[in-house]
Amino acid sequence: MTATSPRIIAVDTFDVRFPTSRELDGSDAMNPDPDYSAAYVVLRTDAGDGLDGHGFTFTIGRGNDVQVAAIGALRLHVLGRSVQELCADPGSLSRALIGDSQLRWLGPEKGVMHMAIGAVVNAVWDLAAKRAGKPLWQLLGHADPEWLVSQVDFRYIGDVLSPAEALTLLREGRQGLANREATLLESGYPAYTTSPGWLGYSDDKLTRLAKQAVADGFTQIKLKVGADLDDDIRRLRTARAAVGDGIRIAIDANQRWNVDEAIDWTTALAEFDPYWIEEPTSPDDILGHAAIRQAVAPVKVATGEHVQNRVMFKQLLQAGAIDVLQIDAARVGGVNENIAILLLAAKFGVPVCPHAGGVGLCELVQHLSMFDYLALSGTTENRVIEYVDHLHQHFIAPVVIREGHYTAPLTPGFSATMRQESLAEYRYPDGTFWVADRAGEDAR
Amino acid sequence: MTATSPRIIAVDTFDVRFPTSRELDGSDAMNPDPDYSAAYVVLRTDAGDGLDGHGFTFTIGRGNDVQVAAIGALRLHVLGRSVQELCADPGSLSRALIGDSQLRWLGPEKGVMHMAIGAVVNAVWDLAAKRAGKPLWQLLGHADPEWLVSQVDFRYIGDVLSPAEALTLLREGRQGLANREATLLESGYPAYTTSPGWLGYSDDKLTRLAKQAVADGFTQIKLKVGADLDDDIRRLRTARAAVGDGIRIAIDANQRWNVDEAIDWTTALAEFDPYWIEEPTSPDDILGHAAIRQAVAPVKVATGEHVQNRVMFKQLLQAGAIDVLQIDAARVGGVNENIAILLLAAKFGVPVCPHAGGVGLCELVQHLSMFDYLALSGTTENRVIEYVDHLHQHFIAPVVIREGHYTAPLTPGFSATMRQESLAEYRYPDGTFWVADRAGEDAR
Repeated sequence: MTATSPRIIAVDTFDVRFPTSRELDGSDAMNPDPDYSAAYVVLRTDAGDGLDGHGFTFTIGRGNDVQVAAIGALRLHVLGRSVQELCADPGSLSRALIGDSQLRWLGPEKGVMHMAIGAVVNAVWDLAAKRAGKPLWQLLGHADPEWLVSQVDFRYIGDVLSPAEALTLLREGRQGLANREATLLESGYPAYTTSPGWLGYSDDKLTRLAKQAVADGFTQIKLKVGADLDDDIRRLRTARAAVGDGIRIAIDANQRWNVDEAIDWTTALAEFDPYWIEEPTSPDDILGHAAIRQAVAPVKVATGEHVQNRVMFKQLLQAGAIDVLQIDAARVGGVNENIAILLLAAKFGVPVCPHAGGVGLCELVQHLSMFDYLALSGTTENRVIEYVDHLHQHFIAPVVIREGHYTAPLTPGFSATMRQESLAEYRYPDGTFWVADRAGEDAR
Repeated sequence: MTATSPRIIAVDTFDVRFPTSRELDGSDAMNPDPDYSAAYVVLRTDAGDGLDGHGFTFTIGRGNDVQVAAIGALRLHVLGRSVQELCADPGSLSRALIGDSQLRWLGPEKGVMHMAIGAVVNAVWDLAAKRAGKPLWQLLGHADPEWLVSQVDFRYIGDVLSPAEALTLLREGRQGLANREATLLESGYPAYTTSPGWLGYSDDKLTRLAKQAVADGFTQIKLKVGADLDDDIRRLRTARAAVGDGIRIAIDANQRWNVDEAIDWTTALAEFDPYWIEEPTSPDDILGHAAIRQAVAPVKVATGEHVQNRVMFKQLLQAGAIDVLQIDAARVGGVNENIAILLLAAKFGVPVCPHAGGVGLCELVQHLSMFDYLALSGTTENRVIEYVDHLHQHFIAPVVIREGHYTAPLTPGFSATMRQESLAEYRYPDGTFWVADRAGEDAR
């Protein structure tokens, strides 16, 4: 290849679905039977260096095809772009995608279309980090604060965070970076585990997995709640007995309740000292979360995995509605918007404890928390990244958990690259797994 | 046909696009070149009575295919359903669609997937009204209050509006219904017109159309603003000179501004006595709208056409963020959710002035305002439905405007049915218009 100015020559999309519903992995009060899926995108270039940009939206099954179609609708903005320019300024693409006035009508900046933007923007960051030869957390952590500010869209958040304030936060955030980088490389970033707590699990399985979590070095676990109060009381008692008093137990209602129910139910579980109540109600209900937080303190209120964009996070912070902010790497408009959200959290001094699990969300979001530690908040105090032990084997560079910590990934990129074999097996509906599955059904 | 229990046997979808961008009709500060489009759905039955249910999502061009795909993803919930049961209880389908846990992940209740739900739910209401032999406004207006309450999903709004309160509002709302129905049938429902005010129009065209609007009996017009302040000052002065002091002039920024800009810009236009400022900032920014409202009074603050669901409207009302609530018939989850929103507005005493225009939005939303007048708020004081004089010719029963009022439609249904010829001409990309258009481009 002799291309002097390489271009994006293909935007390939894949509908990838894993049959997780068959094991009740991932079952909660709102999502009884998820089939963890990815609307997956690969940006291919003619650079001849073998480097592609990978990104995806996580979904839980049906509708993954709609999500793939939405990514496809962005193709015209990406094809033919200069790879060098894109990687030097992913924000330019982010602005072009968010600013497409016709596509904007389908949001704006929310739901299917916005998640599609996130997948494509994240794929650009994956490519940029691969070309830079760094894991994304390091690319971001080492980046010039002025440049990071240039990557943020201040529209609709400028009343609370100005570019000048953001610059100050990032400049101050760098102080002591070298020491923190050494710590990160040695000890990793704290994690908590949701693996014991799915609703579909028996009490015995809950006890066994909760004890295992403590033995594995986790200091926090999480239980799904919200389907049945008596069950929740029994399960929370079981979990507390299994882990003892020194371990934090977060609970997660996955939006099951109205405001009043959230207050009553959380109060009824308070004797087991839950650390936070996560998604007590609609992610859209800023004022509702504020009311719940007032009522259930000292239990903390956490949300974010379904919060659609920086405008909603801004208000959750303005309204004093949350104690814990849970970014998701693949829900909002990608890395650029997540930098904005991390800056907002830093300004308000609210700890960020990312949502993860699903397909590849752990792989992605670790980079954002590590950047935050390295060059923005500068602390891991009361900060933990969710960890769920599913589906990591499908990634080229899966997360590595050691002593309850995410070890810092060293592979260049955003850890988003799925194995070719996994794409071939689980592509829907024509991957080898699904073809065999249908053949088996026909045979029955 | 002898089917004793007719079923839904087909859910047909159409990607319909009109080349409106070529005339600058519909141009505003955020949407310079919209191609008004509909992701259109027809529910066909085996009842043998020739009645289909029609519904659609309005979009502005690119991405209409994604919206069609989202409607297609709902097909499994609709096919095979009993027509009688569906029409007797559209809320059962609404709950099934919103409650599909896998599809819910793509929102929840927002963006592409939620608008698709709205299109399908509205199609059921169209079918129900056709089968009842009534226009939808009359079907709703004559309906039993208990049944109307059963059609509302109180999840996430129960803290502000209980079923019992809703029932009281609807029972009280019926008092004097017969007189109001007579008034409606005689005089119609007040309208305002946006036709003079598109950004792409010259001052001469603005003056001519504004004077025409007054001559046609409108008492309110609307101007798009937000692209350039000096232009807006000149255009607003031009419009005020054209219509005089007795006519209300609303202004509409289409989300162009941050909170601070919205305050400054609106203040700079205050000398021309704008009646309301519409969409001053992000539709997601509840607290931002509240701050703007505080600052720009007595100019009123209006929003809603991009507000994603009842949870957001609930908070806009709780926060005292709006003076005028602008429902849209095809943005939220359909008639059921709009009943919830009308109930919330009635509880807070905030007037509803629907968004319309686009493709078929006038046709749909008139039914909701007329129901509100007939059986809920009981007044048209300070209430007007937007009117834009585009694309009505494509509908079987287009709106009829007389003396600045929407005349009450008498054709059974939701006025959603597009003409077959229009579908054949503007279906994208294979309709006759688009085929000829591409041929013309090739020839150039």
